[in-house]
Amino acid sequence: MIVELVSVGTEILLGNIVNTNAAYLSEQCAKLGLSCFYQDVVGDNPDRMKDVIATALSRSDMVILSGGLGPTQDDMTKEITAEVMGKELVEDTHSKERIQAFMDDYIKTNPTMKITKNNWKQAMVPKDALVLDNANGTAPGLIIEENGKIAILLPGPPNEMIPMFENQVYPFLQKRQPEIIYSQMVKICGVGESMAETAILDLIDKQDNPTIATYAKTGEVHMRITAKAKDEAAAKKLIKPMVRELKVRFGKNIYTTDENKSLEEATIELLHDQGLSLCTAESCTGGMLSARLVNVPGASEVLKVGLVTYSNRAKRKFLMVKKSTLKTCGAVSEKTAKEMAKGGNFVNGTDVCVSITGVAGPDGGTKEKPVGLVYIACCYKNEIMVQELHLNGNRAKIREQATVKALTLLRECVLEHYKTKK
Amino acid sequence: MIVELVSVGTEILLGNIVNTNAAYLSEQCAKLGLSCFYQDVVGDNPDRMKDVIATALSRSDMVILSGGLGPTQDDMTKEITAEVMGKELVEDTHSKERIQAFMDDYIKTNPTMKITKNNWKQAMVPKDALVLDNANGTAPGLIIEENGKIAILLPGPPNEMIPMFENQVYPFLQKRQPEIIYSQMVKICGVGESMAETAILDLIDKQDNPTIATYAKTGEVHMRITAKAKDEAAAKKLIKPMVRELKVRFGKNIYTTDENKSLEEATIELLHDQGLSLCTAESCTGGMLSARLVNVPGASEVLKVGLVTYSNRAKRKFLMVKKSTLKTCGAVSEKTAKEMAKGGNFVNGTDVCVSITGVAGPDGGTKEKPVGLVYIACCYKNEIMVQELHLNGNRAKIREQATVKALTLLRECVLEHYKTKK
Repeated sequence: MIVELVSVGTEILLGNIVNTNAAYLSEQCAKLGLSCFYQDVVGDNPDRMKDVIATALSRSDMVILSGGLGPTQDDMTKEITAEVMGKELVEDTHSKERIQAFMDDYIKTNPTMKITKNNWKQAMVPKDALVLDNANGTAPGLIIEENGKIAILLPGPPNEMIPMFENQVYPFLQKRQPEIIYSQMVKICGVGESMAETAILDLIDKQDNPTIATYAKTGEVHMRITAKAKDEAAAKKLIKPMVRELKVRFGKNIYTTDENKSLEEATIELLHDQGLSLCTAESCTGGMLSARLVNVPGASEVLKVGLVTYSNRAKRKFLMVKKSTLKTCGAVSEKTAKEMAKGGNFVNGTDVCVSITGVAGPDGGTKEKPVGLVYIACCYKNEIMVQELHLNGNRAKIREQATVKALTLLRECVLEHYKTKK
Repeated sequence: MIVELVSVGTEILLGNIVNTNAAYLSEQCAKLGLSCFYQDVVGDNPDRMKDVIATALSRSDMVILSGGLGPTQDDMTKEITAEVMGKELVEDTHSKERIQAFMDDYIKTNPTMKITKNNWKQAMVPKDALVLDNANGTAPGLIIEENGKIAILLPGPPNEMIPMFENQVYPFLQKRQPEIIYSQMVKICGVGESMAETAILDLIDKQDNPTIATYAKTGEVHMRITAKAKDEAAAKKLIKPMVRELKVRFGKNIYTTDENKSLEEATIELLHDQGLSLCTAESCTGGMLSARLVNVPGASEVLKVGLVTYSNRAKRKFLMVKKSTLKTCGAVSEKTAKEMAKGGNFVNGTDVCVSITGVAGPDGGTKEKPVGLVYIACCYKNEIMVQELHLNGNRAKIREQATVKALTLLRECVLEHYKTKK
């Protein structure tokens, strides 16, 4: 089945917002085994919308539209799609009740607000359409079918669109597939994208069912294995040997096979399982590493303190880096990174401390210590692992890469001891 | 002039990458006064590409394509566009020399690499096309004109595309405009989006030349004032009274009128101008605030240390928060926020300390202290400003908002004293 994505909204055409909805929906379609050949963006203009929607419905089997379902005159996605598909609009009592309830609730906390006539426009739906409840807003979603074509209309705000897709559209599409599509994620760190691709080139070359798709993230590679089969059990059976093969090839570089788990989450879990407390000691990343660890709910049980020791004075005071080390080796050196990590544990009584010091640029680079030179160290009790990195890109990119590398080193360091403990 | 954006690449259709190029190019077109009515994404498929490019050239005056200029067989943007526009490909000696030089340089650091025959494909250009040098890669950009239509071909990687657009395409388009388009940015913080819009509703309603466009960012609103005139001086003259009016309405909430200056940069500059040293004390944001300040090159002259005191113990040890305060008021309280800010200065000998403590969720909320309750404080020498925030959204959104609010409070606090000093 060929699917086309149409995003409606002048704010996308003006560059006010990045079209993350299209990226989300594309990935979901790929996961469902649907082929997406086109994405379109069109503004809130009836003629151009009509043109784009009619073209999409003529060349694709299914069109997923997002945006333009709001209560104002500008919001015309539903009206135009219904017109193109030859459907009249009728009032949907269920949606009307939901809008009333949602607004009543909203007015409770915003007493100056009123329900205006506009709002009831959202209760009008194309005849025979399947109505999708919106848990986070007033605009219902819609699935319209006519002449073997399907149009799926979703609200634009991601916090309304994503839950609606996940809970209602995904199961709908899954049921429609002649075969079950099942996919399994394998996430790896500590292996570069090209090295990862080279390592599985033979698998990609002979891939058929299941297929492997690689997604490069900063410092990580995600691999999605997708199989088609008559039922879930059969699909899982096809996927299993491939996952096993990847485990052989990437070993402990695989940090999770859970789609929704991030590297920081896997790392915090690992520390938590071992009952280890953590401290971070950052210079050029300025808190990026601790901020990323704190992304994980409940990180406080592991991360006790984060020290951003940007000045030499702070490195000495909070991490007990020696004056002589800073003088002879400099703030950006293997020795300083090691002393930062060791000092962090000593000062805070933590089990593990990970440190980062480097030249993020654009200024401050020298011939000996160019922009992109970063040292990371991890001290587990009293043993220290250290790495010298040569990173490319601008200031933000260098700091982001250093952060992921430090997370990876932290994970490695804990795993190292995990093994010896057994 | 009507412009259409075509992004080429299967990786966008699979959702592997977010189409940030389209957002960038759209904003640039808006800045140039060009109307963008459509954005399209198409994969590396010759028939579908031909179809999309021909449609775009028929309904728009100018088409900007990005992606598909690489050396492989899959990269066909140039070949297909040339075919649609009826242009033959010829070898461009200048581009060939540049590719040779780029590859020679690359091979120096990667001695196992070789120039393959593929690479010379990139030196072929449509006859009479204007060739745009690529400072960061091997694929030249191209401007092709035929029958009153213009096609502009740019490489896909943003680090190649953006400098090429800025340095070569933007000036080209600016010269083509019958009138000069000039725009001026006004960035404000500490005023919500809807409040900002309400405050300028009358200006928007009667806008003609110049126009105002508002861009909502987390905790900030950016306003772009754009004027058309016969020359730059005349355009600036049209813009000036509008900027003056915005200054009257938003006062010190305007943190810059420089397009490229961020809130953290403006804040660091302000502190630097006053010779003030800074320390940050964060709990729920976990280092987001210090990481954002360190985005600014040279931040080290101002930010001395950042403390992520995630545990109560760390709050006591590093910020001297009183045990009794944590016990009676709790870690998330006005009193704790104040003591954190005061303690930060005391411990570090800094002039200014800004603190954040809150419930970021999803767990940990109570009836008295629900998820989203955040206290921020700023201590300037010994005077303290404090704010209680009630933020909405998920964990990441709450932390991001708290970070911007803290930056805004920090700026306010310094400005307050700046005034009294004079």
